[in-house]
Amino acid sequence: MVLVRGHSLLGAILLCSVLLLVSSNEVGLAGKVLVFPYETDFSFVTLKPRMAMELRAFTLCLRVATELPADRQIILFAYRTADYDELNVWRERDGRVSFTLSGDGVFFHLPPITTFRTSLCLTWETNRGLAAFWVDGKRSSYQVYKPGHTVQPGGTVLLGQDADKHLGDLEATQSFVGEVTDLNMWDHVLSRSAIQAWHYGHRVPEGNVFAWASIEYAPSGNVLVVDDD
Amino acid sequence: MVLVRGHSLLGAILLCSVLLLVSSNEVGLAGKVLVFPYETDFSFVTLKPRMAMELRAFTLCLRVATELPADRQIILFAYRTADYDELNVWRERDGRVSFTLSGDGVFFHLPPITTFRTSLCLTWETNRGLAAFWVDGKRSSYQVYKPGHTVQPGGTVLLGQDADKHLGDLEATQSFVGEVTDLNMWDHVLSRSAIQAWHYGHRVPEGNVFAWASIEYAPSGNVLVVDDD
Amino acid sequence: MVLVRGHSLLGAILLCSVLLLVSSNEVGLAGKVLVFPYETDFSFVTLKPRMAMELRAFTLCLRVATELPADRQIILFAYRTADYDELNVWRERDGRVSFTLSGDGVFFHLPPITTFRTSLCLTWETNRGLAAFWVDGKRSSYQVYKPGHTVQPGGTVLLGQDADKHLGDLEATQSFVGEVTDLNMWDHVLSRSAIQAWHYGHRVPEGNVFAWASIEYAPSGNVLVVDDD
Repeated sequence: MVLVRGHSLLGAILLCSVLLLVSSNEVGLAGKVLVFPYETDFSFVTLKPRMAMELRAFTLCLRVATELPADRQIILFAYRTADYDELNVWRERDGRVSFTLSGDGVFFHLPPITTFRTSLCLTWETNRGLAAFWVDGKRSSYQVYKPGHTVQPGGTVLLGQDADKHLGDLEATQSFVGEVTDLNMWDHVLSRSAIQAWHYGHRVPEGNVFAWASIEYAPSGNVLVVDDD
Repeated sequence: MVLVRGHSLLGAILLCSVLLLVSSNEVGLAGKVLVFPYETDFSFVTLKPRMAMELRAFTLCLRVATELPADRQIILFAYRTADYDELNVWRERDGRVSFTLSGDGVFFHLPPITTFRTSLCLTWETNRGLAAFWVDGKRSSYQVYKPGHTVQPGGTVLLGQDADKHLGDLEATQSFVGEVTDLNMWDHVLSRSAIQAWHYGHRVPEGNVFAWASIEYAPSGNVLVVDDD
Repeated sequence: MVLVRGHSLLGAILLCSVLLLVSSNEVGLAGKVLVFPYETDFSFVTLKPRMAMELRAFTLCLRVATELPADRQIILFAYRTADYDELNVWRERDGRVSFTLSGDGVFFHLPPITTFRTSLCLTWETNRGLAAFWVDGKRSSYQVYKPGHTVQPGGTVLLGQDADKHLGDLEATQSFVGEVTDLNMWDHVLSRSAIQAWHYGHRVPEGNVFAWASIEYAPSGNVLVVDDD
């Protein structure tokens, strides 16, 4: 236990160092794809939001592809504050996709995430707690999840790794391998037609939390930025 | 046994009370979706038909989505008179969809009902007993079922629960979880082109038994009425 | 053994009687579907060709739907002369579709035949022995089968049953249950564009061996002729 804690502490120090080292953010990924080529416990990309992420509603969209086997847990999006996993999206070992707001999550049966690009959006609002995934523009069945909740500001968004167990404790077996592109996030729920427009690559108002074309990001470890072709 | 019967009786009394309590029907669900967020034995919606349901033919259409696992029995539509399950539609444990008219049913191999919306119609007429499901506008193979039969009037339509074993004996493990919208029912068999028009959201004559836009309904328990988006 | 042969002989006599009894053919099935509602060993439809079926090439097209389970053998088309199964099409127990010309067959991996209508064509010509199935207008890979062979005339085409083991020995477990419509057969290989036109319901020259709109047929047992809707 002491050793594990010591290891976690070391991890935390390393991650903090890394986050400092990569603090020179780069800006803008229009027409680019992030490629995570290997399973590692050290490759990730931090994303800097355009506003404090105190959210009572949101739409998160990204395009994702992976060669990982269907029964491998995968972190798809991790937003963590000092104490909590504020907002995580996972592909679970049983194939379901989960969405968690600082605590137990809610699980959705979606089509498999494959080597072909899936466009994946997640909408949630605090009023009635209506949560849904949108796969290639089609909405899942609503689930009611944490009405009244507010996502807390002041954390860090990571792609590629989950740092939630202990700050900085990254696990290769949960890491993302594959491609991510066109991530956008809005502080409100987009309409069906807006989500479908985004899916088909039509022009929609860019995200006011994250906008891929002008996103501030910092890659670390083995991550490639390549042309989307 | 006595205890179970006592429980059923209690359930019957409770259901009757509930049905009385919810007798102040609401009207019209145009652009709305019914969301049954959790597995319960107390959440349902009663629907009041526009005419006595003495039917020698019908078309029943609805759009449905669910997160329930593929091997879970699900009640999709239940019309019950005092003594009989007059007209039920089930998703069975083996994935087939069944249609019963007061007795043993007939089973169809349809594509799975998933988290994405399926448009599902059922047509039947007494003359030759031709029964078919229509999934997203495509007709299943006909099956011959109860030629000569007449659906009896005077019952209650329930969404979300099956009350058929004993009046009021609702079982959580058969309950519906997910979304239902755009339910319409006609007292005749619609043509292929009319069913396809309904599927694609084009204008068709509204149901004369049930018409979603002007439907009289009474939700009970944990059921949400949300905008369809 | 003797009893079985006796049974077969009796069956042969019965079938011959039936074929005589149903010799008053009906004509024309435009806009109609043949529905075989139950598994039987006595329901079938005989088809009378427009020409002697001495064929050195052919295209056979039909639309078919079934509720039968995926691992059930199904006879789809049976043309038998006195001594041989001249031309049979089967859905095999392993899901493959087979084509036999008086002897061992050739097997194709096609999409499953389901409760929704599949349009299925089969082309073959004796010159190179090129055989292919066409599913909803898409051609399978060619297989080379019996170059030099000629289909012999003078037999009977049956839908719904296979009478090949012994003349008149019908087996319920091989019978067809479901729907057949729009069967056409030509004495030559149709072009891709003609097959696709047929699939989409466009006008193509009707079959000169069988033409659904003017087909001579004789239903026997439990077979329904219903409007195609």
